Amino acid sequence: MIPTLQNIYEAAERIQPHAHRTPVMTNESLNERVGARVYLKCENFQKVGAFKFRGACNAVFSLSDEEAKYGVCTHSSGNHAQALALAARMRGIAAHIVMPENAPQVKKDAVAGYGGKITFCEPTLQAREATLRRVVESTGAAFIHPFDNERVIAGQGTASLELLADMPDLDAIIAPVGGGGLLSGTSIAATETKKGIRVLGGEPEMADDAFRSLQARKILPSEHPKTIADGLLTSLSELTFSIIQSRVEQIVTVSEQGIVDSMKFIWERAKIVIEPSAAVAVAVLWEKKVDLSGLKVGVILSGGNVDLGKLPWGK
Amino acid sequence: MIPTLQNIYEAAERIQPHAHRTPVMTNESLNERVGARVYLKCENFQKVGAFKFRGACNAVFSLSDEEAKYGVCTHSSGNHAQALALAARMRGIAAHIVMPENAPQVKKDAVAGYGGKITFCEPTLQAREATLRRVVESTGAAFIHPFDNERVIAGQGTASLELLADMPDLDAIIAPVGGGGLLSGTSIAATETKKGIRVLGGEPEMADDAFRSLQARKILPSEHPKTIADGLLTSLSELTFSIIQSRVEQIVTVSEQGIVDSMKFIWERAKIVIEPSAAVAVAVLWEKKVDLSGLKVGVILSGGNVDLGKLPWGK
Repeated sequence: MIPTLQNIYEAAERIQPHAHRTPVMTNESLNERVGARVYLKCENFQKVGAFKFRGACNAVFSLSDEEAKYGVCTHSSGNHAQALALAARMRGIAAHIVMPENAPQVKKDAVAGYGGKITFCEPTLQAREATLRRVVESTGAAFIHPFDNERVIAGQGTASLELLADMPDLDAIIAPVGGGGLLSGTSIAATETKKGIRVLGGEPEMADDAFRSLQARKILPSEHPKTIADGLLTSLSELTFSIIQSRVEQIVTVSEQGIVDSMKFIWERAKIVIEPSAAVAVAVLWEKKVDLSGLKVGVILSGGNVDLGKLPWGK
Repeated sequence: MIPTLQNIYEAAERIQPHAHRTPVMTNESLNERVGARVYLKCENFQKVGAFKFRGACNAVFSLSDEEAKYGVCTHSSGNHAQALALAARMRGIAAHIVMPENAPQVKKDAVAGYGGKITFCEPTLQAREATLRRVVESTGAAFIHPFDNERVIAGQGTASLELLADMPDLDAIIAPVGGGGLLSGTSIAATETKKGIRVLGGEPEMADDAFRSLQARKILPSEHPKTIADGLLTSLSELTFSIIQSRVEQIVTVSEQGIVDSMKFIWERAKIVIEPSAAVAVAVLWEKKVDLSGLKVGVILSGGNVDLGKLPWGK
């Protein structure tokens, strides 16, 4: 089922005691550089350092006591895993997380730090799904998919509700797209609350399955995606594809250099730490492939979880 | 003359159209790690990325038209230079900046970007002062000392006025100390507006002249200071020493490792970019050499200007 605006309002109310209402930042240097008035929705300041907490929190607290009693589980290479672990801890239930063994150490530590029970798997889709099935069978935990889940999508949409409450006269909103949970929630929240607002997705050229899928009018899976934006490697689901197809103006692909340059610019000028996946949305403005000049543009800075020991610029 | 609380209120009014009112951030992980409730005054988000804009702006806009007509000048290895250049540009006057030739490239670029006219000198006190004298003689510019200036000190004090307006029940405030402008302004603003509040200075062990000066009850200059906190290499002046001696409870010295660790922690957990000099104030809590457990502690995060190509942790 496609979430409604009402579902997003309910999600906002449900997560309000647990999630941060994140600030909206502006930066003159950025505005000058990209030729637009940019409003940065700082989900890097969200609990667990990413918007993912919104969706996970909404999903966990939507479960009935019966559904929740054996805990929750998921597969995730990163932020959704941390988010689900924290939301489960807040509700007092177990979180079983299937993670690829090559996930960044900082993300493994964070999941464990939130009390998540990690089962490692080979870094392939097949291994991940097989491992998840074994975990579900042995624990009875409720599976919370990272994005192919209407409650997760509704939760992600709450970021744009807040952004539009703070900045009602936005002309456009840009969010990064991986599996499409954030972009789906963003597009529903934005287009249902503001007629005519433009919603754009930012995607790495090197993982451009959403761009190609929209062109082809059918889901084309990600094939050998290879990008520094490691949160955006996954492909769309039927659910997110259908939402994005009907509500998103276009997916704009950005180069790896554009991602790194805009990430560094945000760190240097706005003095905030954002992860490459968040920079993908900034890079849409940075590379100017689509004309947004002079407009008021909201950008969802999706997260700030970075391994500071592995930064994509020279010492 | 020692600035009064009234001078700081006037400074706040004078700089209000030009400076940011910076946010106060909190972070649960930090609170847990240091055992106190910490309120981070984010001067890394200030114009030019540092509190220095407050003092420079107050000084520049305090000048009469007659005093201002040949512009302003200063010597500075960094943030004060950028701050003075920007404040001068806002007033429409020239800024002549004497900088050591070995200053970080990112700071040279920023000063030039704000329209400052740079004269490079050898990285010694003698060369700096001689070069400055030549600049003053040839231009007639008004010298705005980075900290030995009552208007600069009054401007720096406005950060604590704002912090205490937002968080009136603070038990203590910590600011880093180099030349002592920030700590002086902080101590006047805090002790004059809140009876009994504790004001502490944070200083690198490797540049501990303020600590030693307070112990000796006389100014002992910095000798071969060598610290990653490159904003804190300077020694106190008579003016800042006298203010700090009468209003600051103690100077707490912190290790280089403590500076780096607390800086990295703030980047990773609070998702904001702070410079090593700002981390010095965090490190006072981090290293727990003074008992502030359970207290509400304000920390002035002095700035966020860092060369991202030269970070103090391994790749």
